Amino acid sequence: MLEIYDCTLREGMQAEGISFTLSDKLAVIKALDSLGIAYIEAGTPGSNPKDEELFHKLRDVETAAQIVAFGATRRKELTCEEDENLAALASAGTDVVAVYGKAWDKQVTEVLRTELDENIAMVRESVAFLREAGKRVFFDAEHYFDGAESDPEYAFAVIEAAHAAGAERVILCDTNGGTLPHVVGERVAAAKMRLPDAVFGIHCHNDAGLAAASTITAAIAGAAQIHGTLAGVGERCGNADLTCVIPDLQLKCGMPCLPDGRLERITPVARKVAEYLNIKIPNRAPFIGKSAFAHKGGAHIDGVLKNSAAFEHISPEAVGNKRRLLVSELSGRAAVRRLLERILPDTPVSDDQVGAVLAELKRLEAQGYQFEGAEESLELRVLALLGLRKKPFEVDYFKIIGETDRGENYTATAMVSLHVGDERKITAAEGMGPVNALDNALRRALTAFYPCISQVILRDFKVRVIDNKDSTAAKVRVLIESSDGVSTWTTVGVSADVIEASFIALSDSLEYKLR
Amino acid sequence: MLEIYDCTLREGMQAEGISFTLSDKLAVIKALDSLGIAYIEAGTPGSNPKDEELFHKLRDVETAAQIVAFGATRRKELTCEEDENLAALASAGTDVVAVYGKAWDKQVTEVLRTELDENIAMVRESVAFLREAGKRVFFDAEHYFDGAESDPEYAFAVIEAAHAAGAERVILCDTNGGTLPHVVGERVAAAKMRLPDAVFGIHCHNDAGLAAASTITAAIAGAAQIHGTLAGVGERCGNADLTCVIPDLQLKCGMPCLPDGRLERITPVARKVAEYLNIKIPNRAPFIGKSAFAHKGGAHIDGVLKNSAAFEHISPEAVGNKRRLLVSELSGRAAVRRLLERILPDTPVSDDQVGAVLAELKRLEAQGYQFEGAEESLELRVLALLGLRKKPFEVDYFKIIGETDRGENYTATAMVSLHVGDERKITAAEGMGPVNALDNALRRALTAFYPCISQVILRDFKVRVIDNKDSTAAKVRVLIESSDGVSTWTTVGVSADVIEASFIALSDSLEYKLR
Repeated sequence: MLEIYDCTLREGMQAEGISFTLSDKLAVIKALDSLGIAYIEAGTPGSNPKDEELFHKLRDVETAAQIVAFGATRRKELTCEEDENLAALASAGTDVVAVYGKAWDKQVTEVLRTELDENIAMVRESVAFLREAGKRVFFDAEHYFDGAESDPEYAFAVIEAAHAAGAERVILCDTNGGTLPHVVGERVAAAKMRLPDAVFGIHCHNDAGLAAASTITAAIAGAAQIHGTLAGVGERCGNADLTCVIPDLQLKCGMPCLPDGRLERITPVARKVAEYLNIKIPNRAPFIGKSAFAHKGGAHIDGVLKNSAAFEHISPEAVGNKRRLLVSELSGRAAVRRLLERILPDTPVSDDQVGAVLAELKRLEAQGYQFEGAEESLELRVLALLGLRKKPFEVDYFKIIGETDRGENYTATAMVSLHVGDERKITAAEGMGPVNALDNALRRALTAFYPCISQVILRDFKVRVIDNKDSTAAKVRVLIESSDGVSTWTTVGVSADVIEASFIALSDSLEYKLR
Repeated sequence: MLEIYDCTLREGMQAEGISFTLSDKLAVIKALDSLGIAYIEAGTPGSNPKDEELFHKLRDVETAAQIVAFGATRRKELTCEEDENLAALASAGTDVVAVYGKAWDKQVTEVLRTELDENIAMVRESVAFLREAGKRVFFDAEHYFDGAESDPEYAFAVIEAAHAAGAERVILCDTNGGTLPHVVGERVAAAKMRLPDAVFGIHCHNDAGLAAASTITAAIAGAAQIHGTLAGVGERCGNADLTCVIPDLQLKCGMPCLPDGRLERITPVARKVAEYLNIKIPNRAPFIGKSAFAHKGGAHIDGVLKNSAAFEHISPEAVGNKRRLLVSELSGRAAVRRLLERILPDTPVSDDQVGAVLAELKRLEAQGYQFEGAEESLELRVLALLGLRKKPFEVDYFKIIGETDRGENYTATAMVSLHVGDERKITAAEGMGPVNALDNALRRALTAFYPCISQVILRDFKVRVIDNKDSTAAKVRVLIESSDGVSTWTTVGVSADVIEASFIALSDSLEYKLR
């Protein structure tokens, strides 16, 4: 089995716009462990107090994965004993440590500004020092591929020194992410040939959009340890995306990466980690994205229903994702029938019902509705059409006011009046803009009746102008994605008014939660 | 030079959540043409009235690129003369048409549900029919790679039939996106060997996260025509992303794709097209993303300052992007100087002015402004900063009210108070939603002072959520495109409130007209 080595916590930290709290990091480690990842790089104990505290806490956390502490080789002109980063690595409490050193001659002379021989001594002595401290040592050969282009003998001398000093894994890094996959493959094979006893790893960045391909090519060429991050987060363009690399290797190359039965968890685990990273998995993400197995064109839907391999390269269930037939006017009776069977699993579906839903869909689509990606709103409308929608609350009216004072100090307020059964409630709230004020007022009113509403958070809010003919009088479609921590749903509203469209989507979202 | 064939308009249309208006499509074509793309697939004239109108309009549009009309081969058991889709292709008014047919035996028998021989006849006759109609014909061999796995002789017979019937290009499609790059390369080379007279193209989907790598491998193996979409949009996980593939081929493989001097436009063109698609280019997108050359880690910033190749695989300027040092912004002076020289053609530009504008830009970008595609708003802000902005009017305040009565009869009204010199005017107006009401009230007030305001029409109104962390309290960016029949300009507003952001963009637009 290949060894999967996850760098999400360390590389993600270097990505623009991402930061973790200590408890985020612990939660991510738990999620990665449940997926069956072999090695989890948790952080750099020498670099910041937060990571030092993390490694302290991790002593009491049981994981099947090996936790790895990461850091630099000793600095130039110091002994290993004098270097506090190495000391922090040695005392981090992990069995495994990873150290990085430069394998590109130009980086040594121009960036480190030291002698080529001193750099090799830094690598050799640091690995030996950590071995003597009783650690399993992995060596990251930074810039290996650029180094092998610039001075192949020097690049080789660096990895040979690490190996000779006792590094158990030698990881070849495409630090700048610019190497083409076939070149990566050739250089991994060449290194393996010259150092047959070494166990190699591969660590690719995605600056040329090729990190997953390079990683797979390296695995085929003999790399045994596979580095990457969930959803590909990382500095600049990120790292090899493990949510592509693992399914590709395991399902397409016959190279298992995870224990049996774990690959099916990759979609939910990636989505959960994305929550902690506070990033959104793009709908188009291969394998784990919401659209990865979504079919929109009529010919494709027809094809996939006749033979799922027609437009699906793998079964969505293999990676814990699911097929979605985007119900649209184009998609026809077959898709509507499947939708009805899903919403009403215990009831036989009649042709009349299919026809009625299709007609309603057509009417709503002509108004500008689009339910792909907002199946939950469609579900509520279908239930209404079949006379099965039970409204958990009724809004009497709402009102929003927005005003500026001399072009400064914009304020927005909203009032909502609603009733549940015979009990009526009127609330007011302020907000960042009228939609936010409305959201606040609506939740305030509903939480009085249904405390579970407080679990619902709105995760995404999208506005699309659907018809620009009349510019500011054009219709808008608002999509709202909500989550209660367990599941996620999306609702949609359409109106010439962005406030009204938002209100429809908001109130659908809360109704869906209460269903 | 390789032929770049862009499918953004056709494949993008099949992507979840993307739809285009006619004017969006025309604007995208103009942008792609400015990049020097050889072929632009504009749509499917047989499939919908919107595309029929588009091809009608395109007869009067001059482009350096060849516009391509796309459609299916004839349906089974019809003659070509009876098939209205083929008739629509023949009469679309383009010199080039692309037709697709199936190259996978299983798809023919299970999805098309016809005989293998009939499928080959459909391909042969359709190509011949369009050749006789005087067209250059490209043939898309759908599912070629799965077909070559399942029944290589049949897959080959399909492309041979298309070639023999006169198809000028034979495009091998990885329709399901599941083929590994090295397999793609081998099969392209094999097809080329068996059909040495044919000119091959490659069309890859991204379901395994490997479309760019497969496309590059195919080009190295001899494919001469490269298909893809801007930002990789397309059904499911999208298509090969031309914004990766073109720079990789041109800068790393020595295979030019665009005329000289055009690659530098790829970042601004991709960002402009993204606005029309109403999608966000991910910050992490290789080459064109905001973070693609952004350096956050201290060691990386230090390294890149000592030697830019330390952590950059190519120069950002080569693709029209720029380096960003996330702690201390140093780049951009030259660009700002050029902007100032354009706005103030007769005045020498001082270093202090450049520095002041740069600082202001940084402040505005941190707020969420982005002036690509909204240069007119930037111009107004730069003039203000230099003390040269003469406001033709000043808004004292505005107020909007939106209300529903029992969830029905939503009404929106706005009041605006403004003054020109000493004269003050207060107006009120209704509208389809608060933004439209505000627009109406603002114009009503201004027309009294400046009758030319009545010529201004708002041509487009786009809303983009820029930061989804706080959902309904997230910031939005509103772009407004205005025209007075002679020229067209775009303005931008950013706020946590969609109303305020719209107001900023609206009032910038009217001020720009009055300048």
